[in-house]
Parts: sequence; structure tokens; C-alpha cells
Amino acid sequence: MHLERIDPEGRGRFAFLAYDQGLEHGPEDFRGNPEAVSPRLVLDLAHAHGYTAVVLQQGPALATRDLHPDVLRLIKLNGKAGIAKGDPYSPLLCPVEYAVKALRAVAVGYTLYPGSEHEGRMFAEFAEVVRQAQAFGVPAVAWVYPRGKAVQNDTAPEVVAYAARIAYELGADIAKVKWSGTLDSFRWVCESAADTKVVLSGGVLTEDPREFLDVVDKVMKAGGAGVAVGRNVWQRPRAAAAAISKEIITRVRM
Amino acid sequence: MHLERIDPEGRGRFAFLAYDQGLEHGPEDFRGNPEAVSPRLVLDLAHAHGYTAVVLQQGPALATRDLHPDVLRLIKLNGKAGIAKGDPYSPLLCPVEYAVKALRAVAVGYTLYPGSEHEGRMFAEFAEVVRQAQAFGVPAVAWVYPRGKAVQNDTAPEVVAYAARIAYELGADIAKVKWSGTLDSFRWVCESAADTKVVLSGGVLTEDPREFLDVVDKVMKAGGAGVAVGRNVWQRPRAAAAAISKEIITRVRM
Amino acid sequence: MHLERIDPEGRGRFAFLAYDQGLEHGPEDFRGNPEAVSPRLVLDLAHAHGYTAVVLQQGPALATRDLHPDVLRLIKLNGKAGIAKGDPYSPLLCPVEYAVKALRAVAVGYTLYPGSEHEGRMFAEFAEVVRQAQAFGVPAVAWVYPRGKAVQNDTAPEVVAYAARIAYELGADIAKVKWSGTLDSFRWVCESAADTKVVLSGGVLTEDPREFLDVVDKVMKAGGAGVAVGRNVWQRPRAAAAAISKEIITRVRM
Amino acid sequence: MHLERIDPEGRGRFAFLAYDQGLEHGPEDFRGNPEAVSPRLVLDLAHAHGYTAVVLQQGPALATRDLHPDVLRLIKLNGKAGIAKGDPYSPLLCPVEYAVKALRAVAVGYTLYPGSEHEGRMFAEFAEVVRQAQAFGVPAVAWVYPRGKAVQNDTAPEVVAYAARIAYELGADIAKVKWSGTLDSFRWVCESAADTKVVLSGGVLTEDPREFLDVVDKVMKAGGAGVAVGRNVWQRPRAAAAAISKEIITRVRM
Amino acid sequence: MHLERIDPEGRGRFAFLAYDQGLEHGPEDFRGNPEAVSPRLVLDLAHAHGYTAVVLQQGPALATRDLHPDVLRLIKLNGKAGIAKGDPYSPLLCPVEYAVKALRAVAVGYTLYPGSEHEGRMFAEFAEVVRQAQAFGVPAVAWVYPRGKAVQNDTAPEVVAYAARIAYELGADIAKVKWSGTLDSFRWVCESAADTKVVLSGGVLTEDPREFLDVVDKVMKAGGAGVAVGRNVWQRPRAAAAAISKEIITRVRM
Repeated sequence: MHLERIDPEGRGRFAFLAYDQGLEHGPEDFRGNPEAVSPRLVLDLAHAHGYTAVVLQQGPALATRDLHPDVLRLIKLNGKAGIAKGDPYSPLLCPVEYAVKALRAVAVGYTLYPGSEHEGRMFAEFAEVVRQAQAFGVPAVAWVYPRGKAVQNDTAPEVVAYAARIAYELGADIAKVKWSGTLDSFRWVCESAADTKVVLSGGVLTEDPREFLDVVDKVMKAGGAGVAVGRNVWQRPRAAAAAISKEIITRVRM
Repeated sequence: MHLERIDPEGRGRFAFLAYDQGLEHGPEDFRGNPEAVSPRLVLDLAHAHGYTAVVLQQGPALATRDLHPDVLRLIKLNGKAGIAKGDPYSPLLCPVEYAVKALRAVAVGYTLYPGSEHEGRMFAEFAEVVRQAQAFGVPAVAWVYPRGKAVQNDTAPEVVAYAARIAYELGADIAKVKWSGTLDSFRWVCESAADTKVVLSGGVLTEDPREFLDVVDKVMKAGGAGVAVGRNVWQRPRAAAAAISKEIITRVRM
Repeated sequence: MHLERIDPEGRGRFAFLAYDQGLEHGPEDFRGNPEAVSPRLVLDLAHAHGYTAVVLQQGPALATRDLHPDVLRLIKLNGKAGIAKGDPYSPLLCPVEYAVKALRAVAVGYTLYPGSEHEGRMFAEFAEVVRQAQAFGVPAVAWVYPRGKAVQNDTAPEVVAYAARIAYELGADIAKVKWSGTLDSFRWVCESAADTKVVLSGGVLTEDPREFLDVVDKVMKAGGAGVAVGRNVWQRPRAAAAAISKEIITRVRM
Repeated sequence: MHLERIDPEGRGRFAFLAYDQGLEHGPEDFRGNPEAVSPRLVLDLAHAHGYTAVVLQQGPALATRDLHPDVLRLIKLNGKAGIAKGDPYSPLLCPVEYAVKALRAVAVGYTLYPGSEHEGRMFAEFAEVVRQAQAFGVPAVAWVYPRGKAVQNDTAPEVVAYAARIAYELGADIAKVKWSGTLDSFRWVCESAADTKVVLSGGVLTEDPREFLDVVDKVMKAGGAGVAVGRNVWQRPRAAAAAISKEIITRVRM
Repeated sequence: MHLERIDPEGRGRFAFLAYDQGLEHGPEDFRGNPEAVSPRLVLDLAHAHGYTAVVLQQGPALATRDLHPDVLRLIKLNGKAGIAKGDPYSPLLCPVEYAVKALRAVAVGYTLYPGSEHEGRMFAEFAEVVRQAQAFGVPAVAWVYPRGKAVQNDTAPEVVAYAARIAYELGADIAKVKWSGTLDSFRWVCESAADTKVVLSGGVLTEDPREFLDVVDKVMKAGGAGVAVGRNVWQRPRAAAAAISKEIITRVRM
């Protein structure tokens, strides 16, 4: 466990600014705020507002290697396009060593889809990512989204709690999971993660920022360790993105 | 064969406290006794009652590395979530070397699903685990659960006996199999395992502890070498878990 | 990013002469202009007209190693025949190191089929190609063609924009994509690629050269970085191929 | 070709005592003669009657490493349980090097299922086993059983002859195949194997030993090199097993 | 390109005596001329008549290592049995290094099935074979047979021409393809192969030798480089096999 790289004071609070949606969803996510099509916006926001780290794939990390050297980077190690249907497989695209040595990663991320017929390859890859992250002294963050025929509702409390637990069992330092709907159920999600910290997956843009901020409040009260937010920030114009960033970071109280 | 690591006096009796259900079944298994959501409970119980070893996946083993150094650890090397239906594949998540060197394993475990269409990958992985375990001087324990379209009843005596035999043929030191229903049939299970020791897979919580303890008695009379029990211990409140632990260990007579 | 190998003056304009159709489509593509069946024609054209590089598979590159040493070579690293139906997989056929050291590559190319059920293997292979290209100091060019059941129209603007973005997210220096139909939509394609340069995939022969050249003009006005053209050049007789080559290169204004 | 390890006088005759049925068929094969559940019986028989070698999987070989050091061991390198239906795949479970160095193998065996949709993986693994066996100076024995939708009758002469030929084409020293029904047809089987020796696969227990011994006689007359027999020996009580062992070895005239 | 190993005078003419049918078709191919069941016949013929090389799999090559050291050997590196239906996969069975160092190969061969759903694995394996062959100084020969649902007629001129082109694109020195039916169409086949030499795949026995020899004549007139013939030679009795061998070699005019 090497959380000190992204949490030097040991406060156990994290606010990640997620920017891997260009691969996962495509540029349609940037249509409403075209400035967001370049990673410069999120790097500026992280620089100005003190996000724990910006989440980038290999490509944007390479292209912006020299921008805002003060902004920490969590490199997302696996990914897939959002085109194909069927049970998802998100392969390792970038090894931990390259992320750390060439892309200045101080943390690494990997998405797990438990319940997919390809679950085993992702579990095995992530378990190895955990060991590599240990070796290179950076924390491993698991995005965990149960999928597949047996998953009727991927925000049901028992499904989200299972997601958090899987992250713990495989050795993740931090689990990123969906909102389970209520403060009480999310408390069980956080307890299920045992020693692994739980952060909220920001999800789709809520028109009224207070709606999202209210969820953040509940996450923190439930024992959550923070958020990994993307669209709820950078799908707003720069001024509104700055405003909600301040609110988020205040609530996470890092 | 390196059973001396977990059986220094060579008595051939084993009582493992299994705690890999968080991955295999999810946190629903901890609902009835929420304290069990953390591995501290099972580590405390093992410390107090002298279980042979606690069974942990990589994640909990990492998180509790410094707790109860006297408690021996059997690291479960493969695993899967209990979400997907269909023929199971449980991939190697943790190599033997890492289990021994980084997680203080004195034994390693691996689940085989004979009859699954993915059987071959698991047989090959486990056969290699056996050789690695030899090289690192720790015993290899096989969880063996026949599955797939051709398996109508996975507790039928001939199915359980075949499970035990597969463990032997691949080189397991210990086989963990289900209860075959009667003392006589379980005697054949133990004989089928030849030189491999057989331990009972504890299974679901029996409301009356005596029901479970009666099975343990029969296993020992049938020539079994002990148990690997989880839910029948830690799904009970701490005091009741302590009580049944004493009873189990007395019956196994280690 | 090592574009200097194919763009020493840093003008950011590229005109590739593509000649990998013998594998992708078969010799039927050469029927109309049989001279094109040998790579000598495209090497002559590149020598005479100053294309950025000629695109070759391993075989033709080996066979013509000593021809026109002044002509730069982009080695296409993966490929498949155009016979099988179903979701495409185009495997790595030639490692970056061999392309650079044995085939004199100054750039490397790889085709991605996002949306194919085999997408993951190609994404992972290309992400590694990007890192190898970095290590060997050559740019990586991604051919990106969304495919599969979920892709109704592979020239729809949002599909082409997603293609360009995928190239960026994985770390391509240049993305080769299809024409999205209008100047405005192609501008969004180029913006979606962020720091990655976008070149037009030349596509099928247009009977009237002006039709193709008009598209090239729009690509450049939309922010494109050039073209990768094949059939629109070498499916014409040598004189006409020379004539359109001059027109293309003038329009790309390298 | 290193047959001298199991045939120092170069007589070209072999009688293997097969004991890999515990994995392939399960302990039901031992029900009729429960003593056979332990490999001690076959080791005793081989010690007393001079079988060429006993056939063991990794597990029994490990467990009996120090028993009857005079008995030679052929380690079966691949295997599968007999539970799953469908096209068989029998993966490599034990590398040649481990068999030779750790398990005292003087010969190695591998089962091929030509016609299975997984044929290719087995052919490739066995071809490598042949090369490894060459390197370690031990003969490679191929069990060859055509399977799959296209195989109506796996003892038809042309099917058994093809099995023997495949062993030869891949480089086996010895092919183990089923009885093709007649002396004449088995002569063609042996001729089809060219330089590869052919031994009979013993098959199920025949109630009257003479029935089996009659087949052995025909095999030898047809040009066969011997037998690999299991159930027809150890499914009989120890005395009867000894008696038929003498008869078999006399007929093979090693 | 290292054709000098099999063509020291640079005449560009080749007559291979193919003997890999034992694996591909089974011993039924030898029924009509049982002497052909042993590779001694083809080695004798090659010795007497000056074939460029004999084509052997690993097994026969091992068994006949010391026979006719003057006869050159082309080792067939991949193969499959002719039992299973469905899209073919013919895996690499023997690495180039072993073929050259242990089996005295002066050339290597590999069968490609473009259009098969397993095409990608074969293309990737063969592209690596080409590079290994370069490294070891021997020519690489591609057997190319389009297959799969999309291939209605595998001797249609455009199909055979595509086959020849694929060999070229992947870097084969020589392509072995089927007869396309007419001299004119075969000329296009040869042109499609560009720098790669084209040899005729001999195919099934023609009752009248003149029928086959007439095809050989047309192949040579069409620009072909020779033949790879098997059944049309060794399915005839030794004297007739010798006679047609002379005729073939005269026509190829090596």
C-alpha cells in the first residue's frame, strides 16, 4: 500500500479528476463543452483546484508530458471503446513500469468487470497490476463495474458492495464504484471494502450541480474516501467547472 | 510434499479457517455477522484457538500482513466472483513465489473445477502450482469441485471420490472436497485420494452447530485429515464462533 | 512523438502512398492497372513526386530493400486478407524492431477495428507498438476503422470522430480515418484527435480525379494533416498517377 | 530416438503397465479391486514381472518417488478428467524436464486427440515434447485416439492406421493405439507407423484373460512392438494380475 | 531471400517432392502403392532424379536423418490431420531453428489458410517464420489454400491469384498454389506474386501422367517456377514414379 504518493499527510481523502472518457465513450462526451476535447482543460482545473490526480490514458499522458508538472497523474492502464456490445473485456494497454517511468504516474488504475465472461483475464491482470504497483511504490485503483447476463441492476446495493469487496480481495488500495442509491447502503459498501478506500464514480452530468454534491456529501458521511469525477466537472463550461470543483474538494475535505 | 510447514509434529490433522468467501460469494456472506467483514475476526479466532492456518486471498493478506504474526497463512492463489453463470474458470491470481515471499504463505491453495470446459487451464495451472510449491517448500492444497453439464449432483459419492483422486493425480498434498453424505462413502473418498490427505469443505451454515460437528466426526472416522471451515464459524457471533472453533479442533484432534 | 523522422521541417503535413492493398483486398485491385502489381510503380512515384513515405507490408519491403533508397518507408505492422467475413482481427505480423532495423522503416502503421469482438487484442498490440515506436524513435500511425454489429455506418461523423479519438487515447502520432462526408464534421474529427494528426484514408478510385482532390481540399481546410492515398493514385495509368500525385501534394502543401 | 533407455538390448519389444486411469476415468476403475487404488500394486507387479515401465501422472510419481527404485517410470505428461463431454483437450501438465529430473522418468507419454477441435494445441505441444525428449535423452510415447464429430468409429482400421501415422509424422518413438479388430488390419496400422513402434492400448477388462491374450498374440504377429496394459491387469485380484502379467510378458517376448 | 541454398546457380526453377500427406491425409494415400508408406521411396527418387528437395515433417525427418545425405530437405513446419471439419488451423509444430540445426533443413514450409477464422494466427506465425528463415539463411515456402465460408471455389483464378499475393505480402520466397485452370489465368497468378516464385501444387493423382505433365508445361509457360508434387509421383509404382519424375524435371528444366 503506497497511498503516501497521493496522500502525503495520510488524511485518506481523494478527489480524482477522471479523463478517460474519450476512449470509453468517445468524443460525444465533449460535444457540450468542446474545450474539454483537449486534456489541457482538466490539467488546468487540477492545477487550480488541487485535485488529487488527473486520470489519463497513455496517449494523452504522452502528449501532455510537460504540462503542469505539479499536477499528479493516475494512469489508466486498461480500456476499451464503448462500441461493441456483449460481455466486456478491457485489456491491459499500458504496463505499470511504463506508466511510472515514462508517464510520471503516481498511481495506476484498472477497470474490472466482474460477471463478464472475460472476468478471469481482468482479475488476473489486475492482481498482477497490484503486485507491480507495490514494486514501483504507487497505489492501485480499481474501477469495479459488475456486468453480464446475471447483473440485472448494477447499482443495486449488494452489487455495489460486491464490487467494492472484489477490489479488496484482489489487493486494490482504492475502489471506484457506483452510487448505491442511499447513504445507508453505501455505508455497507464501504464496510465491505474493509481496508480498501472507496471513492464514488462520478457518473453522468447532473443538470443541477447540487444534486451531485448532495451525493458526494452522503458518500463522505457513509465512510467513503472521496470521488473520481469527470463529466460532472468538465461537461460544464470552464467557470462552472471551476465552481463545482471547489465545492467537491471542500466536501471531500482533503 | 512439505506438510511439515503446517504440521511440524507429523500428526496428519488439519483445521483450516477459510476466508476466501468475500471474493467467491461476496459480502452477503458477512451480513449475518457484520464483524466478519474484516479479516481481523478470523485472525483473532485462529490466534485464540489454534487453527492450522487462515485461508486468505492476496488482498486481505496484504492488508493484514502485520497482524497476529503467529497465525499461519494459506494463500488462495486463484479465485473468481460468484456472479457469472456457465462453466467456471478460476484463474491464477497470485504466483506461489509472491505468496511465499511477500505474503508469508506456509501453504497455498487452488480451486479446480473438473468437468468445466475450462478444466484444462486449471489442471495445467495447478500442476505448475504443485511444482512451484515443491520448490518453495510449502504444501499445495486443492479445492476440488466438479462442475458442468455432465455433473448432475456434485455431492454424489462417485463425484466426490473422483474430485479427491484428481487432487492426488495432479500432486496435491491435501484435497478439500464436499461431504459425500455418509461415513461409508466418505471412506471411499479418502481411499481414492491415496497419499493425498482429505479435508472436508465446511459449506453453508448449519443452524444447529451439532449438525456440522456430527459431519466432522464422521469425516475423521472415515479417514479424513480434518476440515477447512469458514461460514460455520464466522457467520456466528464471536462467542459462538469461539465455541464451535473449540469443538471442531477437539474433534480434529490435531 | 518522433514525427521529425518523416517531417524534418516540422510542417505537420503528410502524404503517404499506401500500398498494403495487395494483402487487404488482393490482386483484383491491380487488374485495372497491371503495372501496379509490382511495388516498383509506387516506389517510382514516391521518388518522383516527394510523397512522405510509401506504405508496405514486410514482404514487398524485403523484396525491394535496395530500390530507391531515398524513398522513406512506413511499414504496416499488421494485416489480414479480405476473404473472411465476421468481426475482423488483424494481428501484428511484424515487430517494430524488425521494421526499423531490417526494413528501414522511418514510421510504422497498425490497423485498429474498434467495435470488433477482437478489439481488445488490437488495442493492446497497438498500445505496445506505440511504446516500441517511442523506443526506436519512429512515429506510430493508426489506421482506425470501427466495425462490428453495432456500427451501422462507418463514415458517420460521430463514428469517424471516435476513430480519431481512439488513436489519440492509445498514443498514435497520426490517425488515418475515413472521410466523414462534410468539411464541418471533419473539423470535429480533427478536434477529437487533439494532439494526434489526422490524415484522410484515400478509399476507392473516383473516376474523376477532381472529386477526390476536392475532398483533399476540404480535409486540409478542416484541420487535417494530409492524406494516405493508394488506389486513387496507382489504379490510374502511370501518367495519370503522376498527374494526380502532383495535385495531391500541392494541396497537402507539405 | 532414445529407446535404449527402456530397451537396452534393442529388442524392440515393450510392455508398459498403464496407471493413469485414476485421472482419465476416476476411482470407479478401482472399485472392483480396491487394492488398485494405490499405485503400490502396480509398482509391485512391475517389480515382480519385469514390465518395461509403469505409467504414472505427476502426483503418484511424486508420492511414490522412493518405492521400487528398480521399476522404470514413464511419466504421462498430459491428462484430463473424464467428466466433460465435447471435443477433448488434454493439456500438458508436466514438462519433460521436470519428469526426467524430479520424477525419474526414463520415458514420457502424451495423449493426442486428432479430429478434436483442439487438435492443434495438442499437436504443437507434443511436437515440442518430442524435441524436449530428444534433448533429455528419453523416448516419447504418443497415445493417439481420433475423436470428434467426424470420427464415427474410433477402432475402424483406417482410423487406427491414421492414429499410428500421426504419431510417426510428429516424431514419436512409440505409438499407443487401439485394436483395429483383425490381424490383417493391424499389420497395416504397424506399417503406417513406419519407423515408429506400435503398442496396443489394453482397453477395458475382458472377463476371460485368454480373450485379451489372443489380441496380444495377433498384435505381435502383425508387427506390433508390445502393449500398454492397465485395467486388464490391475482390475484383477493380485494373484490373477500376476498370472496375466506373466502371460503378457511371455507373449511380448521382450 | 536465400534461394541460393536450394538454387545455387540461380536458375529460379524448383521441383519439390512433397511427402507431408501422411499427416494431412493419412495413410490412405499410400494404399495404392504401399511402398510409399516409408519415406525411403521418396528419398530414393529424389536421390536418383535430382529433385530440389524432399518435403518432410519433423517425424520422418528425424527417422531418416542419416539416409541419402545428398538429398536436400524442406521441413514442413506446420500441419494438421485431415479429420476435423470446419475452418482449418494448422499450428507451427517445429521451429525454424530446430528444422535447420537438427533436421538439416535447407528450406522451410508453412501452410496458410486465408479466409479461415484462424487466419490471423497462421499469418502471424508465418511472418515470424519468414524472419527466422532470413536469420538462418534458408528460403521460406508458403503453401497457400484459401478456405472458409466465403470461399466457394478454391481454384477460381482470382482466389489462386490472391493466394499467391498473400505469400508475397508476408515475405515468402516461394508460393505453392493450386492450378487455376488455364495458362492465361495462371500467368496472372504468377504476376500477382510479384517477386515471389510460384510453384504448382501437384494435387491428386491423374490416371494418365500426360494430363499432369500438360499442366506442368502450362505452369512453366505462364511464368511459374516449378512444381511441388507428391501423389502424382509416389502413388505410382516405383518404375512409373521414376518415369514421371524424369518428365517433370525435364519440363521444369532446372
